[in-house]
Amino acid sequence: MHVIDARPLGDAEAAQIDAYWRAANYLSVGQIYLMGNPLLREPLLPEQVKPRLLGHWGTTPGLNLLYAHLSRIIAARDQDLIYVTGPGHGGPGLVANAWLEGTYSETYPRVCMDEPGMGRLFTQFSFPGGIPSHVAPETPGSIHEGGELGYSLSHAYGAALDNPDLVVACVIGDGEAETGPLAASWHSNKFLDPVDDGAVLPILHLNGYKIANPTVLARIGDDELTALLTGYGHKPYLVQGDDPAEVHQRLAATMDVVFDEIAAIQHAARLDGTAGRPRWPMIVLRTPKGWTGPKEVDGLPVEGTWRAHQVPLSAARNDPGHLALLQEWMQSYRPEELFDELGAPARSVVDWLPRGDRRISANPHTNGGRSPHELELPDYRIHAVKAFEPAEATRVLGGWLRDVLTANDAHHNFRIVGPDETESNRLGAVLDVTDKAWQAPIATVDEHLGPHGRVMEILSEHTCQGWLEGYLLTGRHGLFSCYEAFVHIVDSMVNQHAKWLRTIRHLDWRRPVPSLNYLLTSHVWRQDHNGASHQDPGFIDHVMNKKAEVVRVYLPPDANTLLSVADHCLRSRNYVNVIVAGKQPAPTWLDIDDAALHCARGLGIWDWASNDAGDPHVVLAAAGDVPTMEILAATDLLRRHLPDLKVRVVNVVDLMRLQPEAEHPHGLPDAEFDAIFTTDRPVIFAYHGYPWLIHRLTYRRTGHANLHVRGFKENGTTTTPFDMLVLNDMDRFRLVIDVIDRVPGLARRAAVLRQQMVDKRAEHRSYVRSTGEDLPEVRDWTWPTA
Amino acid sequence: MHVIDARPLGDAEAAQIDAYWRAANYLSVGQIYLMGNPLLREPLLPEQVKPRLLGHWGTTPGLNLLYAHLSRIIAARDQDLIYVTGPGHGGPGLVANAWLEGTYSETYPRVCMDEPGMGRLFTQFSFPGGIPSHVAPETPGSIHEGGELGYSLSHAYGAALDNPDLVVACVIGDGEAETGPLAASWHSNKFLDPVDDGAVLPILHLNGYKIANPTVLARIGDDELTALLTGYGHKPYLVQGDDPAEVHQRLAATMDVVFDEIAAIQHAARLDGTAGRPRWPMIVLRTPKGWTGPKEVDGLPVEGTWRAHQVPLSAARNDPGHLALLQEWMQSYRPEELFDELGAPARSVVDWLPRGDRRISANPHTNGGRSPHELELPDYRIHAVKAFEPAEATRVLGGWLRDVLTANDAHHNFRIVGPDETESNRLGAVLDVTDKAWQAPIATVDEHLGPHGRVMEILSEHTCQGWLEGYLLTGRHGLFSCYEAFVHIVDSMVNQHAKWLRTIRHLDWRRPVPSLNYLLTSHVWRQDHNGASHQDPGFIDHVMNKKAEVVRVYLPPDANTLLSVADHCLRSRNYVNVIVAGKQPAPTWLDIDDAALHCARGLGIWDWASNDAGDPHVVLAAAGDVPTMEILAATDLLRRHLPDLKVRVVNVVDLMRLQPEAEHPHGLPDAEFDAIFTTDRPVIFAYHGYPWLIHRLTYRRTGHANLHVRGFKENGTTTTPFDMLVLNDMDRFRLVIDVIDRVPGLARRAAVLRQQMVDKRAEHRSYVRSTGEDLPEVRDWTWPTA
Repeated sequence: MHVIDARPLGDAEAAQIDAYWRAANYLSVGQIYLMGNPLLREPLLPEQVKPRLLGHWGTTPGLNLLYAHLSRIIAARDQDLIYVTGPGHGGPGLVANAWLEGTYSETYPRVCMDEPGMGRLFTQFSFPGGIPSHVAPETPGSIHEGGELGYSLSHAYGAALDNPDLVVACVIGDGEAETGPLAASWHSNKFLDPVDDGAVLPILHLNGYKIANPTVLARIGDDELTALLTGYGHKPYLVQGDDPAEVHQRLAATMDVVFDEIAAIQHAARLDGTAGRPRWPMIVLRTPKGWTGPKEVDGLPVEGTWRAHQVPLSAARNDPGHLALLQEWMQSYRPEELFDELGAPARSVVDWLPRGDRRISANPHTNGGRSPHELELPDYRIHAVKAFEPAEATRVLGGWLRDVLTANDAHHNFRIVGPDETESNRLGAVLDVTDKAWQAPIATVDEHLGPHGRVMEILSEHTCQGWLEGYLLTGRHGLFSCYEAFVHIVDSMVNQHAKWLRTIRHLDWRRPVPSLNYLLTSHVWRQDHNGASHQDPGFIDHVMNKKAEVVRVYLPPDANTLLSVADHCLRSRNYVNVIVAGKQPAPTWLDIDDAALHCARGLGIWDWASNDAGDPHVVLAAAGDVPTMEILAATDLLRRHLPDLKVRVVNVVDLMRLQPEAEHPHGLPDAEFDAIFTTDRPVIFAYHGYPWLIHRLTYRRTGHANLHVRGFKENGTTTTPFDMLVLNDMDRFRLVIDVIDRVPGLARRAAVLRQQMVDKRAEHRSYVRSTGEDLPEVRDWTWPTA
Repeated sequence: MHVIDARPLGDAEAAQIDAYWRAANYLSVGQIYLMGNPLLREPLLPEQVKPRLLGHWGTTPGLNLLYAHLSRIIAARDQDLIYVTGPGHGGPGLVANAWLEGTYSETYPRVCMDEPGMGRLFTQFSFPGGIPSHVAPETPGSIHEGGELGYSLSHAYGAALDNPDLVVACVIGDGEAETGPLAASWHSNKFLDPVDDGAVLPILHLNGYKIANPTVLARIGDDELTALLTGYGHKPYLVQGDDPAEVHQRLAATMDVVFDEIAAIQHAARLDGTAGRPRWPMIVLRTPKGWTGPKEVDGLPVEGTWRAHQVPLSAARNDPGHLALLQEWMQSYRPEELFDELGAPARSVVDWLPRGDRRISANPHTNGGRSPHELELPDYRIHAVKAFEPAEATRVLGGWLRDVLTANDAHHNFRIVGPDETESNRLGAVLDVTDKAWQAPIATVDEHLGPHGRVMEILSEHTCQGWLEGYLLTGRHGLFSCYEAFVHIVDSMVNQHAKWLRTIRHLDWRRPVPSLNYLLTSHVWRQDHNGASHQDPGFIDHVMNKKAEVVRVYLPPDANTLLSVADHCLRSRNYVNVIVAGKQPAPTWLDIDDAALHCARGLGIWDWASNDAGDPHVVLAAAGDVPTMEILAATDLLRRHLPDLKVRVVNVVDLMRLQPEAEHPHGLPDAEFDAIFTTDRPVIFAYHGYPWLIHRLTYRRTGHANLHVRGFKENGTTTTPFDMLVLNDMDRFRLVIDVIDRVPGLARRAAVLRQQMVDKRAEHRSYVRSTGEDLPEVRDWTWPTA
């Protein structure tokens, strides 16, 4: 690793930075411990210590140190910079800095810049009715919670994309560095365009310990660590020490070199036209965990060990010895030098900081973007497929997405991410107008790769998700296209993002962010060829556990409805939108006007397929493209064989419509629901995923007891598409049997048809096992009027 | 990277290996394409080509090449070796090799070693009623499906643990290498003990392309790649080429060196006592994707590009040009030299292979272990807590787990894994008798680290899960302790493992494997201090979507029931067991005999807390430790204020008991369910997780409409434990209100009590916001008879 030996700080500047750092540390400790006597102008009393001591000290002094030195760089260079902190449990540090910069009081006027304000700043932390212990949405300047580790670096890259003037400084804890998502995201530097994108400055903070263990990267030795970081494609600089005065000099010197190098790389790429992937600089910062905190407590070493991770003096309220140590510790920062008479930061401590929206905590990129552009959405109707014509839904969507890319080309505000699946998912038309981002060498056989591409593919769902989250949280727009089964890989990430969205909805100063849009395709019913590992529709269930105000699920039954749904989702903000749609050739059921109307309603009766004249014997409902096909095929069979049976066909695009109004903003009023589904007729419901979700959603509806749901029941393997349906009892023949078994009085009258259906299923099994193909009548079926 | 230039193969041996490789390639192609004419003794006809061409050719020749060369090593050294193939989509390759080794026909006699058998081998592949396209449980010699990429290397390490004579060769595709879980798992080498564990030989297969893109690692250049792999702690050897004769020599030479080096490392550690972490060798194999396949199809390059990924001649059945190319391609392997008159492998092709259970496809490690030991489970009763005494449930469990470690010490067959949380989860007693595995340097302040430790901690849930899966699938036992919220990180991995377990239950030749046991603690109700990101009980819902025959969920309400449940789970096989239990001090409700009985029943009436005399006005039910506490506290309030109200208290440990018998093997018969829950009285059910799951499970029960479920409804933040309950309407006061509102006729009589409860909730909110603590009466409450 490179080590810079210069001492660029004059005495005054060094003292200034150190004073600022001490102030941030003081305010961090105060948040963890105190609920009174914030300036320690009186001796500390036990009742001024919080009864429950929560928060994480260990990482905090390092985060504060970097905040101070990054602020120096911003001030010196008028640098646009945001700060992503992987160890988000260092929340008190980020709050402390925001308060010192004045942003906190601007955002929350009650927490003003004086002694009472400081008192509130301290008390509110990790306190009921107060603020969370982590770097939460409540923290000005944050786009990254960090409660769940692993996503800091991919978030940082997402934020840097298409922000050419921005540097995203990203602290990666050495604990976080052990996670899979973080380990994968180092390779993001192969996708960052030095011309059109900003820069990411990774700062690996080796403080040596996790909760109870040393970290791997702190114990592999400098040679292996250098090799590893070089292997990741970086030029690593090492800053280490435990003497603040020395570390200030080294860190300042290294920051100067590193920011020069970033500028030189960008200059070369942008003005000299230098091509190829730069080796971006990064910093390894090795400082003690819990630096400047208690060296020893109760006879055990604390500073520099895992014992500094959370609250080093755990008995400060009850143990006079701990209380005295706490007072000593806080006074070691010399608060009397740092805060004025009123309790505001002393002018000399803060007067060198960046101003206005150059302050890290006030950077607009962290709150909806510096100059966000609404996404321009061209008319999707020109991609309409004629009713009853076959189409591959995602391929049609790809045509419109190409237009979206073109329409927004000038704004650089739209990206498509996916794990090597854009073409497999038949969205390839987008590559007519852009490339797949690629900074590494390109071979002659390669297609559609280029340094400025707006499609981003890496075989890591985690990295795709992290990039997109970072991009959205800084005010831009995007789509994640993914195999349905493997989107479970990011279950935990979408949890965290949904929690973030839920919180910002209730913070009036937070600007809404564009929705996180999933296109899940290559779905369970058409992964017959890849087998059980590729068959799982459970992501819908997973997102349904998140807050109703945040989550939307759409199951467009054909190409035209997919266009309409995608248009709607890309216009929306603050949601997680899940769209499930097939990529195989399938009929188009609705013309584009009907499709738009149907999607606007979210669900509805398909009169053209119904013969119930307002009073059905049975309702056949579907949600999902394959279920819709089967319901219609079953309806066709019923109408041919039992023409006097009155069948109503209902289709559901917006799954949330099934819920009562009280439970979801999209919920259909009970009266409308009852009018569509009836209150007393059997409803045979074919659903794309696990059947119990439909029961859950319709649980409080009047006719719920009449609902019979078919769906995926985990019977999967390598087989044919129709065999997947038969294995899971959702094929058209089985649905006809369901109708016969459930419509009162039909069993006897339709006994022959019922037996025919049983025979058909047997015929299918036999045919498919001998030929490897589905019965022609099943493959070729189309709606009679088509 | 190191390159070995020797040419160790004599002409005869080189010819032998090449013939074997050609045979494996031939059989792989045959599986993808043919359903007749397997030996191509007649000209190939269109109808002999499968109508649906499925499978993945691209990775297969590389996997076959390695199979051949690993077999050479096994035969030469009598090496115990298993083979994990990350690119599991190369399924036809593994099946082909198993057939050549004879194992396939031994396992599936219908697929015999002659022409008809070969015909069946071909037809069955990716065919309805046949076998999956990936390396599935159906494949002899496999422990790794590889349908979802990322887990090969952690599986390999898990298999190698405690198998000192075993080498696990692990192919990592360069696509898979981009995933987070794989990227993290390289560091597993810091946890592998050269004395007590076997070795892992990672083989990074750089075939250059994914589905539609080049791979990152194939384009970073040899210098960076060398740095990266060195940084991972390996000594990398490069083998590259596209001339088979040359590659055979280089690969054989490199294998010789590498296996010598592994032996030398083990010798040094075991016999010379050399301490410290070895730099294990690894191989980088750079060969063309789809090597030996069609060079060009329809004018476009195929071999060596992403176009070779799946089926290079996609129209072989319909396009005579493709058909001719297919025949030419298959005949290029010279089948007439490879198979005898009857269609069996020619003797010279296979007579050099390892024999018996040294064959890769017959290695017993891949089917329950070479010499598995049942886990010895000492009596947990000696850890019993007295009824009504407070205990930290997981700490009590830790004491018993310590005994389990001791009892099985000689067998080396039990491991505990977790992401840096064993002590945080209060299982620290296990460290009295073992260490945390650690091969890197150890500092003086470190505690409980050692090279032979049986506790494995890395801050990667993915790696923990992968290690444990590999360990279990090779016949050993273990436990994964994890923060409840973050176990979602492995949602997708548990999906795949559950599918594996489901499949092996139906393969009579597969031995049952010890269950995958989760201990989820630091759970939603007691992550009040860490805030919303740490609060998520949804993993239960996630696993509930898997097959009922595979999944079990336990919610022991106290320390004694936790002991009993853990004992039960560690004895079981072929399940995914999820245990959710708290780590905070809490009352112990049942003495150890009652606990054992209660757990055996799975749910039951707690007579000691009930006063219903067989005919309750209301049933108060709970599942989970915190819900149980609240239900009992509510019962206490009701009995004090409404002594004539007859309350029945029901507790549920085994969540599966709630389901009907028809839906789950643990399901309670309806008559019993009705006897316990009644059919017509209100049931107030306090549940640990999202409430709708209880509705789903009890959906078909008679009294379901009377069920009112309280649970977590995603209202989380940093606050106090009791405030978490109030925020989610599951506190004792709210439960009393629920009873008053739902028992007919009670509303008027209990109006005063109801208002008191409303006031209590308001008092709580006010108290907690001013003091930061819960009301003393809530903190100190214990059951009256305690």
